[in-house]
Amino acid sequence: MSDVAIGVDVGGTKALALMVARDGRVVGELKSQTPHDEGFGAGEATTKVIVEQVHELCERQGLSPAQVPIGLGLPGMMRRDGHLAFAPNLQTASGADLGAQLGTALGNSSVFCENDANCATLAEHEWGAGRGIRDFVMVTLGTGIGGGVVADGQLVRGRSGFAGEIGHMVVEAKGAPCSCGGRGCWERYASGGGLHRLTREAALEGRLASVVERCDGDPKKVRAEDVTAAAADGLEEAVTLLREVGWWLALGLANLVAILDCGHFVIGGGLSSASDLVLPAAREYLAELVEGYDARPAITVTTSMFGERSGAMGATLVAFEGA
Amino acid sequence: MSDVAIGVDVGGTKALALMVARDGRVVGELKSQTPHDEGFGAGEATTKVIVEQVHELCERQGLSPAQVPIGLGLPGMMRRDGHLAFAPNLQTASGADLGAQLGTALGNSSVFCENDANCATLAEHEWGAGRGIRDFVMVTLGTGIGGGVVADGQLVRGRSGFAGEIGHMVVEAKGAPCSCGGRGCWERYASGGGLHRLTREAALEGRLASVVERCDGDPKKVRAEDVTAAAADGLEEAVTLLREVGWWLALGLANLVAILDCGHFVIGGGLSSASDLVLPAAREYLAELVEGYDARPAITVTTSMFGERSGAMGATLVAFEGA
Repeated sequence: MSDVAIGVDVGGTKALALMVARDGRVVGELKSQTPHDEGFGAGEATTKVIVEQVHELCERQGLSPAQVPIGLGLPGMMRRDGHLAFAPNLQTASGADLGAQLGTALGNSSVFCENDANCATLAEHEWGAGRGIRDFVMVTLGTGIGGGVVADGQLVRGRSGFAGEIGHMVVEAKGAPCSCGGRGCWERYASGGGLHRLTREAALEGRLASVVERCDGDPKKVRAEDVTAAAADGLEEAVTLLREVGWWLALGLANLVAILDCGHFVIGGGLSSASDLVLPAAREYLAELVEGYDARPAITVTTSMFGERSGAMGATLVAFEGA
Repeated sequence: MSDVAIGVDVGGTKALALMVARDGRVVGELKSQTPHDEGFGAGEATTKVIVEQVHELCERQGLSPAQVPIGLGLPGMMRRDGHLAFAPNLQTASGADLGAQLGTALGNSSVFCENDANCATLAEHEWGAGRGIRDFVMVTLGTGIGGGVVADGQLVRGRSGFAGEIGHMVVEAKGAPCSCGGRGCWERYASGGGLHRLTREAALEGRLASVVERCDGDPKKVRAEDVTAAAADGLEEAVTLLREVGWWLALGLANLVAILDCGHFVIGGGLSSASDLVLPAAREYLAELVEGYDARPAITVTTSMFGERSGAMGATLVAFEGA
C-alpha cells in the first residue's frame, strides 16, 4: 500500500499533476501544456505529457514510476472501464483508452480514470468544502458546467459512470444552442461561457453602454472579463448582468434540490473566483426558485476549498481507492 | 416479525389501503374517499378514514390493528420524522403529523410514513418494473409529476427525505406558472395537467379544429380526454399534441439522464395509461435530447407494473423495513 499517489487533471489546454499523501498533503506539483493538435493516434501525445510528469514527480521523491498508484481526471463521459466515451472539450483524446495507454507506457498496473468533475467532488468530500456532508452537489463553473453528486455520503456514478453531467440539464427548452448538440443547456447561461454569451448579447443590444464605452465603444470587443471588472468598479449595468448569471445559477441549483434534496453546494471553476457577485446573487434567488423553500432547512452555497487543484487532488483518491 | 403489513396511499381524493405479504402477494384491498373539507384539526378526518380501513382489513384476517406494521404514502414533502412539511395537493393534511396521529388512534407503535412517489418507486424496485435495476427513475404522470430516484440500488431520500420532487425541475425558465409558486416546472408540460393546459391553449389558438368540432364547436369545452380519444381515432391534430407532450416528457427524462446516468425509467400515473402515444414519442425524442446518446447503452422506458397500486404496495415495504 503506497503512502502517496499521483493525480493528474487532464484539461483541454493544461495537465496538472499532483503527488499527494493519504492525509491530503501535497508532496509535489507540476503543470504542463496539453497538445491541441496531436498528429498521433488518439490520446498518444496526451499520454506522453503525463508520462513525463509522472517520471519527474517520482524522481524528486526517489520513487519508481511503475509503483505509485495513478489517477486521471478526464473531461467528458468517462466509462468505468477507463474508456473516454465522449469528450467534446478534449477531442484529441476522445475515444482513446488513456488509462491503458499510460499503464503500458509506465509499466504501471495501478492506473485509474474518472471524470474530472467527479474527482473534484471526491476531493471536496474527503478533505474540503463538502467534508462530512452526506448530500451535496459540486458545481464547477468553467467554460461549461461540470459537476458531481453525493447522495447519502456516496458519489453517484450512474449506470456507466457518466453521472454528474449537470451542465447539460436543459433549463430553457429550445434555448441557446450548446456544443453537445442540444439547446438550452444550463451551462449556456450560468457558466463562464454563459457569461460570455450573455455579455455579447447585452452589448449588441445596447444594454451595456457604459462597459462598451470602456472598450473603445465597440460592442464586439466586450468580453466577460470586461463585465466582471466593470462590476467590481460598481457599474450598474455590469452588476445587473452578473446578477442575471446568478439567477440562472440559482435556477439550476433549485432543480438539483428538487431532484436530490441536497442541502449544500460546493462551487468551483473560474467564474466563482472571477466575480464576488454571482454567488451572493444565486444564494438570494434560491429563496424564490426552490420549491417549498420555507419548509426546508437552510441551503448553503460555498466555494471549493481546493480551487483548480481539486480535480487532481480527487484523482489521487481514485488512485488510492483503486490500488 | 409480522408476515403482513398494511400500506395506505393517501391521495387528494382517495385512500387506497392494501394488506400485503412479504413476497408481494396482496391479501386485502380497500379504497375510500378522503375528505376535502375537514372541519377538524389538520389531518384528523384523513386519520379517521385510515383507522377505519385498518380495522376492516385486520378484521377480515383476524389480526389486531395494533400489531400489523403500517406504512403511509403521502403526497408532498414528507420529513423523515413523519411530519408532512409541504403538501399543495393535500392541503387538509399539510403540516400534520399523520403517522403519530394514526399510531395513537390505533395503539400501534409501528406506523411509518414516506412520500407516495418514493413508495411507488420502492415497490417497482422490489417487485416490479425496476426489479434488479441499480440505476433508474420512477416517474408518475398524474395531475403533476412525482418521482423517485434509485442510484446504485438505493432510493435517494436526500437530506430531509424530500428527494424525488422531479416535477418541479424547471425546464422552461420563466414559463407557465405552477402551483408550487414557481414557473416553467416540468409538470406544467409533461403530466396529465400539462396535457390539459396544452389542450386548452391549442384549442383557443385554433390548432385543434377537428377536436373542437366534436365538442359542440366550443374550444372552452375541450378537455384532455377529448384529445386522447380523438388521437385514438387517428385525428392528426390530436396525435401531434400528444407527441408534443411526449417531447416534453423526453426533455425531462434527458435531464435526469445527464444528472444521474440512469439507464431505465418506470412510468406510472394516469397519463401513461390514458394514451399509447406519449411514451413511444418520448422514447423516440430521447435520441435527440440526451447528451452523448450514441455513447451510452440503450435507455429503456417502461410502464409501471403495479399502476395505481404501486404507492400502497411500496408503503408496505416502508412498514416492513421500519418494523
